Amino acid sequence: ADLLPEEQCRIHDLIRKSSYEAGEVIFRPGDETVDFFLVSLGRVKIAKLSPEGKIQLLRLLGVGDFFGELSVFAGEEFLPYQAEALSEVHLCRIKRTDMETLLDRTPILAWKILAAMAGRLREAERLIEHLGLRDVRGRLAAVILDLFRQAGKMTDGSVIPFAWRQKDLAEYLATTQESVSRKLGQIEQAGIIRLTAEHEMILLDHDRLEALALDSPME
Amino acid sequence: ADLLPEEQCRIHDLIRKSSYEAGEVIFRPGDETVDFFLVSLGRVKIAKLSPEGKIQLLRLLGVGDFFGELSVFAGEEFLPYQAEALSEVHLCRIKRTDMETLLDRTPILAWKILAAMAGRLREAERLIEHLGLRDVRGRLAAVILDLFRQAGKMTDGSVIPFAWRQKDLAEYLATTQESVSRKLGQIEQAGIIRLTAEHEMILLDHDRLEALALDSPME
Repeated sequence: ADLLPEEQCRIHDLIRKSSYEAGEVIFRPGDETVDFFLVSLGRVKIAKLSPEGKIQLLRLLGVGDFFGELSVFAGEEFLPYQAEALSEVHLCRIKRTDMETLLDRTPILAWKILAAMAGRLREAERLIEHLGLRDVRGRLAAVILDLFRQAGKMTDGSVIPFAWRQKDLAEYLATTQESVSRKLGQIEQAGIIRLTAEHEMILLDHDRLEALALDSPME
Repeated sequence: ADLLPEEQCRIHDLIRKSSYEAGEVIFRPGDETVDFFLVSLGRVKIAKLSPEGKIQLLRLLGVGDFFGELSVFAGEEFLPYQAEALSEVHLCRIKRTDMETLLDRTPILAWKILAAMAGRLREAERLIEHLGLRDVRGRLAAVILDLFRQAGKMTDGSVIPFAWRQKDLAEYLATTQESVSRKLGQIEQAGIIRLTAEHEMILLDHDRLEALALDSPME
């Protein structure tokens, strides 16, 4: 997040732009590319697909987030995941060779990208922790707790935006939409959080949310 | 892997060394550090812990691998995971500020670290895929297939080193050691792989291994 301001897209002649409509698939797993993709508008869903079409959501990207790091930095030319536009999406595309030029010109960029990748790695490892050590209710509570924590709003009464669709949340937590809906309802009815019609989430009982996230009654 | 040759540890005065015995915990979750840690000898296990002491293994590090990227690049001072020495371990430690100096002196280093982090992110996302979309047998088959793929040995008769202990494999695949042992035995008895006493694994039937990894009979 916050990697490159949108203005840089216009300044640098190294960058090409492309745009996509909501629902459009930007890349399919196995598609070839040597580009670095920076989101300058909209939301992009990055996911793995199983042969039967089941989806494991890896992350949702917003403005300032990027993908394609594997082809640019590790020299792999085939994206191992799907990228799908969740809204109107504008991307800035930078070729691998141009990325080298760009990093040479602006060394501070390397640090920014390293910071962003360290953050992404932390989030991927959090998801591994959720999937490996928690049942569905615990995963959901842990993800909600993470959202409040990342926003720095850990006190009762705190309000954060909550843009997750239940479908995406189910694909992220490796469960069904019904299960997400039921557990979310239970956490809300217990007076721990409240969801508003304006896609906001209110924290009502931090201590019990933390207890739910820590309590991992698997097996 | 292969990030910095061991010699660089000796050359750079910015680097301090520390060593650990097998079984020693190097860092506990929540421990404070502003260092970047490079493994110059041995194997390190990086894992998340649940409150009841259950372990989710995130990755095994070897010579040339690093950890602490969060504190150095993203400014987070508390490691969110445990680092444990699986053998005698020597680490090179570099302070955050010294890392800046080092990257200024040797810009190519930034690319190497970016490449290593892109690779780690790819592996973390593969593990998410395994946990989210596959049952235990499928996860095991997929991990074995990845090992042969990474070694570039995809033909029947290929031999690779296989250093995983069943305990670690169970903690990686979020299952029990008994289950790993049973499924590994089944895959071996089916004539798909063979394990040797020298900790090597022989690929006997690539097509069926791939079929096992793709066949994800969950739910």
